[in-house]
Amino acid sequence: MDFTFFNPTKIIFGAGSLEKLGATVSSLGKHALLVTGGGSVKRSGIFDRAVASLNAAGVAVTECAGIEPNPRITSVMRGAQIARREGCDVVVALGGGSTMDASKVIAAAVLYEGDPWNLIAHGQKDWHIPTEALPVVTVPTLAATGSEMNSGAVISNDDTKVKSFVQTDCLFPKVAVVDPELTLTVPKDQTAYGVCDIITHVMEGYFNGVDGTPIQDRFAEGVIINAMEWGRKAVADGSNLEAREQVQWASIVALNGWIQAGVDMVPPMHMIEHALSAHHNITHGAGLAIVGPAWMRFAAKALPARFAQFAERVFGISPEGKDVQTLSKEGIDAYVAFLREIGCPTRLSDVGIGDELFDQYATDAALVLRDEEGRLLGRPPMTKADIVTVLRDAL
Amino acid sequence: MDFTFFNPTKIIFGAGSLEKLGATVSSLGKHALLVTGGGSVKRSGIFDRAVASLNAAGVAVTECAGIEPNPRITSVMRGAQIARREGCDVVVALGGGSTMDASKVIAAAVLYEGDPWNLIAHGQKDWHIPTEALPVVTVPTLAATGSEMNSGAVISNDDTKVKSFVQTDCLFPKVAVVDPELTLTVPKDQTAYGVCDIITHVMEGYFNGVDGTPIQDRFAEGVIINAMEWGRKAVADGSNLEAREQVQWASIVALNGWIQAGVDMVPPMHMIEHALSAHHNITHGAGLAIVGPAWMRFAAKALPARFAQFAERVFGISPEGKDVQTLSKEGIDAYVAFLREIGCPTRLSDVGIGDELFDQYATDAALVLRDEEGRLLGRPPMTKADIVTVLRDAL
Repeated sequence: MDFTFFNPTKIIFGAGSLEKLGATVSSLGKHALLVTGGGSVKRSGIFDRAVASLNAAGVAVTECAGIEPNPRITSVMRGAQIARREGCDVVVALGGGSTMDASKVIAAAVLYEGDPWNLIAHGQKDWHIPTEALPVVTVPTLAATGSEMNSGAVISNDDTKVKSFVQTDCLFPKVAVVDPELTLTVPKDQTAYGVCDIITHVMEGYFNGVDGTPIQDRFAEGVIINAMEWGRKAVADGSNLEAREQVQWASIVALNGWIQAGVDMVPPMHMIEHALSAHHNITHGAGLAIVGPAWMRFAAKALPARFAQFAERVFGISPEGKDVQTLSKEGIDAYVAFLREIGCPTRLSDVGIGDELFDQYATDAALVLRDEEGRLLGRPPMTKADIVTVLRDAL
Repeated sequence: MDFTFFNPTKIIFGAGSLEKLGATVSSLGKHALLVTGGGSVKRSGIFDRAVASLNAAGVAVTECAGIEPNPRITSVMRGAQIARREGCDVVVALGGGSTMDASKVIAAAVLYEGDPWNLIAHGQKDWHIPTEALPVVTVPTLAATGSEMNSGAVISNDDTKVKSFVQTDCLFPKVAVVDPELTLTVPKDQTAYGVCDIITHVMEGYFNGVDGTPIQDRFAEGVIINAMEWGRKAVADGSNLEAREQVQWASIVALNGWIQAGVDMVPPMHMIEHALSAHHNITHGAGLAIVGPAWMRFAAKALPARFAQFAERVFGISPEGKDVQTLSKEGIDAYVAFLREIGCPTRLSDVGIGDELFDQYATDAALVLRDEEGRLLGRPPMTKADIVTVLRDAL
């Protein structure tokens, strides 16, 4: 193993921690840009509670509402304009992954004179990796992307139909105020898609990382086992606070870098899903429930031993009397059964997507994370034909 | 779960990373106090390589050699005097847990006018928790305490025979340069004691933390399983770099806070061991191999389900047809067998300690981490009589 690890984000975790938002933000700035999504935080009263906490701590608030799912670069530009105009010196993200991702890039775009789309990797020559950003505080209201405690953000471009990412140290939130009570009202379907997102984050490193990381393997298996156990409970009864807590915590550790340390994770499932959801506005986690199993069936041919380990350790499937391919297939089948049990789509036909744009998805998926031969990185690397094969298997 | 987590230390991990020391330190200061232990780093040539890397990066070096095992407050005072006199602006720890712990407290003592012993918790009224320290870079040469990436330090006082700790944010090392090659020459016994220290760190949270942390449980079990597997290999063949890497990584994650997040860990095994090794200069990990099993037999009566989980998940012992006490006992026995297999003492008689000072150890152990009734914190809390019972069981 040969790696650098760094994650300076402070977590304040616990039911009721929203009340600590004002005190937390006031140590970082005097005027917050409060970034929100589609309005559910207003209907639930969370928005008013956040503003009250900020104001009580002497922090002025300017709102940037309406960050959409699969957040767009146009929203980032709008947020940066508001923050500049109003003189905001700290960004508070109150919402799900979209809101948190947009907030991070807004925080960098405020301090960058060029076109914010340059900040996102999309195969361009003038990629400007940000080196400075306003301080960001994240307040997740959905357990899914784990964006609350990492330095990554995924942004879409409506004009070019490209969805891509930026990940760099200056985008680490200063503090994540993680209050699982805020997720109690998340509907069943979004809860399930979030669980799939969490599990897929862990799987990307587990299957696509380097060999020789046995401690990280155990961490990964532990998170998947718990995301399934508590995810089931959170879907069955959204008001189960303990289940919400555990799923929220799983979301954070799934992608805050602890499991990925030394793993050299690349995320082919995510890259393929991004290509899909850039064209069809499906929820990212739902897209992963469709792409994931098809990718797993493809990858298991090259990595049967690892998929067999997954079957044994995560699902407790006995290896006795089975060859590694059979065991490996049983693990994938068990995972698909879990996804269906919690109500995720697992086929493109479940969400009304056909094969018309398969070539386009395959091209888009390999736009950034590709090897010298243009193949999408992962184990195994995928040619465009491989990606189309996987998509066809997902029909 | 209700907690705050923060760990801003950057890790640079990998065989050969010692070469990156100079560049790393030069970003933090111009004149390093290079703190070392008993001389093994000189005999092995590691010291010269470190100095060469620092000098090549333009960093001046002043040495503070001779930090002893169970480092003393007098060594901290000496280091702080040297650093002040020479104008050092960064502290580099090159050694094991003792060297790293002393370095952290030296870094704080340089900036503190009072008696450095005030910085350590020992039940005093004028406890001064440090709020500032010189930047520290750790370079571990032994996998054991995990001090390389946490904010804690344990220091002994020869006059009072008290061994206690300080843990606070300003003591987080800025960077841990972790080169597993540096541990290739660690002798078998010290390797084994280090493995016991690693496992005990994980156990303290696993057994003494709060309930309701299932993800952290899985993390803990994964680290213990791997510390045993790779610890066996490192003891059997010290030149096995992969084994050294895995044990080193286990050492870091065992006590960098990831497993302990939300767990409210208290360390009764450590407190009892500290009381022992403050009086008898035994290696801390060896002391833990003696205290640990006796404490486990005591605690298992109160927490049989948790010890049964340990037996099943860590040692794969089948629960079929067994009551929880039997299963729990089988797990502890398996752990003791492991300790003996790698060459650890598991009895006080193995290291020539008798029962003459049991009352004193029991008093010392409960000096700091105690409840209102004066009992040593843990599950269950321990009266002095309980501690003596455990020590008697360890004879």
